[in-house]
Amino acid sequence: MTALDPRPRVLVLDVNETLSDLSHLRRLVEEAGLPWTIVDLWFAQVLRDGFALAAVGEEAGFADIAAHCLRQLAPDLDDELVDTFVRAFAQLPLHRDVAPGLRALARQGVPVVTLSNGSASVAETLLERDGLRDTVGQVLSVEGAGGWKPAAAAYQVALDACGLDDPADAAMVAVHPWDLHGAEHAGLRTVWVNRRGSTYPTYFAAPDLTVRSFEHLASELT
Amino acid sequence: MTALDPRPRVLVLDVNETLSDLSHLRRLVEEAGLPWTIVDLWFAQVLRDGFALAAVGEEAGFADIAAHCLRQLAPDLDDELVDTFVRAFAQLPLHRDVAPGLRALARQGVPVVTLSNGSASVAETLLERDGLRDTVGQVLSVEGAGGWKPAAAAYQVALDACGLDDPADAAMVAVHPWDLHGAEHAGLRTVWVNRRGSTYPTYFAAPDLTVRSFEHLASELT
Repeated sequence: MTALDPRPRVLVLDVNETLSDLSHLRRLVEEAGLPWTIVDLWFAQVLRDGFALAAVGEEAGFADIAAHCLRQLAPDLDDELVDTFVRAFAQLPLHRDVAPGLRALARQGVPVVTLSNGSASVAETLLERDGLRDTVGQVLSVEGAGGWKPAAAAYQVALDACGLDDPADAAMVAVHPWDLHGAEHAGLRTVWVNRRGSTYPTYFAAPDLTVRSFEHLASELT
Repeated sequence: MTALDPRPRVLVLDVNETLSDLSHLRRLVEEAGLPWTIVDLWFAQVLRDGFALAAVGEEAGFADIAAHCLRQLAPDLDDELVDTFVRAFAQLPLHRDVAPGLRALARQGVPVVTLSNGSASVAETLLERDGLRDTVGQVLSVEGAGGWKPAAAAYQVALDACGLDDPADAAMVAVHPWDLHGAEHAGLRTVWVNRRGSTYPTYFAAPDLTVRSFEHLASELT
C-alpha cells in the first residue's frame, strides 16, 4: 500500500533535470571559459521568463528563451556557442537511476509518457540515445498549450493525449516542486523525485509520494 | 513629443532592482563566506517560484519564498543569517539616478506610486532612509491580489488604489522585461529602465519608452 494506490493509469514524467543531469552542462560551459555557476542561473532565468508568460496565459519556445537569457548572461559568446549550449539540453546524460527505473516500470506494465516545457525532440533524443525510447509511450511537449507547466493548460496536453477524463488517473513525476504544484492544481497526483535530500517548499502543495530515484518509484509501484 | 504622450496620470514604479541596487547584497553574502554569484541565482529562483504560483492564480509571501530558496542554496547558513539576507532587501542602496529622478518627477508634478512583489514595508524603508518618501504617493504591494506581477491581478492593485478606470492612464516603470510584459497585458503603458544597455527579449511585448535612468525619464516627461 503506497500513497499511489490505486495505481495511476499513466505516469507523466518531466524531462529536464528529472531525467537529464544538468550538471553536465557546467563542464561544457567551463570549457568555453565561462564560470560553471552560470548554468544554474541560466536555467532559473529561463523558467522565470517562461513562467512569467504562463502567468498571463502565453508562451514562447524554450530554445528562444534559453538563447536570449544565455546571451544576456554571456554577451561575448558567439551565436554558434549559444546554439551549442541550447542544443546541449538534448545531449545531457540521464541520471543513473533513470534507465533501470524506466525498464522496471516497463516490465511492471506501468504506462509512462513524458511532458516537457522544452520541445519533444529533446526528450526523444535523450531517450533514444540510451535505448529507452520503447519504455515510454508518448513523448509530449507543452508547446501550443497556451502556457508552460505549471499552468493548468500544460497538464491538459498529457490528459488529452492519454484520453484521461479524470486527472487523478495520472501522476506527475518531477524533481521540481513548482511542477508538482501545478500538477496538483490541475488535479493530477504527484510524485517528487528527491535525489539530493532537499526540503520541499511549504508554499507549494506537498507531493503525494516522495521517492529517492526512479528505481525507488518502480519498487513503490510493484 | 515622447512615446508617453499624453502624459500618464500615474507612474507605477517597480521596487527591487528598479529602485534598489541588488549588487550590494553580493558584498554581504561574500562577507558570510558564500560565493557572490549566489545572489543573482537566489533572486531568479525567488521570481521563478513566485511566478509559478502566479501561473495557477496563487501567491505566497516574498520573504517566505526568499527564505526557502536561500536555505536550499546555502544549507549551512544559520536561521539568523537567512533572516538578515532576506531583510537586506530593505537595506540596499538606491541606484544613483533614483533620488534626482524622483525629485525631478515630483517638481514636475508627475504622480508616482510604487508596486512591489515584496512587502510595502521594504519600499517604505528604502524611500524613507534616503528622504524620498514624500516624492511617492502610495507605496503598494501585490500581497493579497492573488498573484505576483506579471499576473494581471497584481497591476489592478495600483489601478484601484489610484482610482483609474482606464489602465492606459498608468505607466509601469521597471528594469524587468517580464514586469513590463505583464503591465502591457493588463493595459498599462510601459517604460523600460535600461541602465546597462541590455537587449530586450523578443518574446516579451516591447516597451512604449526606454530610458537609461530615472533622470532620463524625468527629462522625457518635462
